[in-house]
Amino acid sequence: MSFTTTRKVRFEHCDPAGIVFYPRYFEMLNACIEDWFDERLGHSFGAIHVDGGFAVPTARCEVRFTAPSRIGDPLALSLRPIRLGRSSLDLEIDITSGEEARLHAAFTLVHVAQATGRPVGWPEPLRDAITRDIGPSAVATDPQGDASHGT
Amino acid sequence: MSFTTTRKVRFEHCDPAGIVFYPRYFEMLNACIEDWFDERLGHSFGAIHVDGGFAVPTARCEVRFTAPSRIGDPLALSLRPIRLGRSSLDLEIDITSGEEARLHAAFTLVHVAQATGRPVGWPEPLRDAITRDIGPSAVATDPQGDASHGT
Amino acid sequence: MSFTTTRKVRFEHCDPAGIVFYPRYFEMLNACIEDWFDERLGHSFGAIHVDGGFAVPTARCEVRFTAPSRIGDPLALSLRPIRLGRSSLDLEIDITSGEEARLHAAFTLVHVAQATGRPVGWPEPLRDAITRDIGPSAVATDPQGDASHGT
Amino acid sequence: MSFTTTRKVRFEHCDPAGIVFYPRYFEMLNACIEDWFDERLGHSFGAIHVDGGFAVPTARCEVRFTAPSRIGDPLALSLRPIRLGRSSLDLEIDITSGEEARLHAAFTLVHVAQATGRPVGWPEPLRDAITRDIGPSAVATDPQGDASHGT
Repeated sequence: MSFTTTRKVRFEHCDPAGIVFYPRYFEMLNACIEDWFDERLGHSFGAIHVDGGFAVPTARCEVRFTAPSRIGDPLALSLRPIRLGRSSLDLEIDITSGEEARLHAAFTLVHVAQATGRPVGWPEPLRDAITRDIGPSAVATDPQGDASHGT
Repeated sequence: MSFTTTRKVRFEHCDPAGIVFYPRYFEMLNACIEDWFDERLGHSFGAIHVDGGFAVPTARCEVRFTAPSRIGDPLALSLRPIRLGRSSLDLEIDITSGEEARLHAAFTLVHVAQATGRPVGWPEPLRDAITRDIGPSAVATDPQGDASHGT
Repeated sequence: MSFTTTRKVRFEHCDPAGIVFYPRYFEMLNACIEDWFDERLGHSFGAIHVDGGFAVPTARCEVRFTAPSRIGDPLALSLRPIRLGRSSLDLEIDITSGEEARLHAAFTLVHVAQATGRPVGWPEPLRDAITRDIGPSAVATDPQGDASHGT
Repeated sequence: MSFTTTRKVRFEHCDPAGIVFYPRYFEMLNACIEDWFDERLGHSFGAIHVDGGFAVPTARCEVRFTAPSRIGDPLALSLRPIRLGRSSLDLEIDITSGEEARLHAAFTLVHVAQATGRPVGWPEPLRDAITRDIGPSAVATDPQGDASHGT
């Protein structure tokens, strides 16, 4: 199920060409993922990182930028979880302003232990919450299914 | 020909898990590209953007993160231009710390006019400088060769 | 009259000590000032900077940090304009979380022409809007009154 | 004794008005302080924060911005420790470009335990290193001398 947050392009996001400096988009994308964990899944980054000793680093991302964003533009970020592995998660985020697409992003996240940096299977409550949101058909049931990104 | 810059991981780059927060990597990657334009090609972002009225936005990037970086780690960023189109440029950057790979990034940049946001062919001196650095074999001589990313 | 915006402390704001890295506070403070111009005064930074050719740089700021903020903390930023000069503006912002003060900031902004970087008197509609919000008693009527920060 | 680092103003630091967005200065200022701890004092932020369980948050800062900085400008940051308290430190940093002053910053840092967030006296080796750099005359020998900022 899609999860949407909104942002307004601010002065702080824009470069001397007057458009969003793309590293700022990654802060917006990360904030959207953080909000999805907190508000949709019920597991905040604070609980995962600070209390739990785990982390959810990005293993891979691919972004296509289709049109520039300017100061004052209202942006909508729509996140869709795509595929759940043992310790990985593929998700996609589209950023649009009104009818216009601004970027399409595909992420692979991995659930790791902070102490070792090694992948650790999603804990049951978090796995269940993601599964509910993603729909069961996209959950990898075959261990080989996870092999594509080694997690 | 490879172009290398170095960075030290600072406090400002790190998140509560004690590792580099990945949007900060994009600032480092962009700075490496900016230095390559300035120091290797002899065309600074200041001249291109502020004086020239052009811009070099990122049309696409794909990054694979292979190991985390921690505060104090020395990083080397090595940029290689890969393929020059009429108004586009593919390049790759590897970040390593000592012998360990930290990330591999592939970028497609596009040369655009700020006023219109439309792609504009690389100006001759910049095209020549990129060609010298990339080696002539990777320069697209066939217009169709540019079609893959529409620029 | 006080103007208040709210923020949640996110992962992106926090450092390896798990608390807000203070340069991130300055982004929040600037965003609060930007929202005040846009929503309270009716003059967006986009209109001022991009369309108007003016800018509102910070000439001075003083911040006292009274307690740390942690991931997930809800923050309230309350801005009060204090004193209006010919081309300057003093304002204060307090950041609190619940009952707890987190920081107190005092800013002096200056209205300048981008082309010259020189101070330029506030345009009438913006001066009127600030005056209404600040209350007329705090508006400098004596040119000498502006001398303290030379603007 | 003064400690100087250099920076070049990059694209990433600049706003739509083409000048350094001031929150980016605070990242530069913090990096200068971090380098001073590491290179001059021999105590890295990594050792202090990650290994030691301490932190050196900013309790107060005051900055006067005297001239804007533009993309490509070479900047010099010169740090001078001013006064050492039991758990506090006052220092000043000037940023210049060539002969032109860009900003003057005054900071008060506090040495705290991460677990409690409470001030903790500087450890002996760090105190000695700061004392050597600051010169003994500016070290507070009277406990009341620390009262001005409560640390």
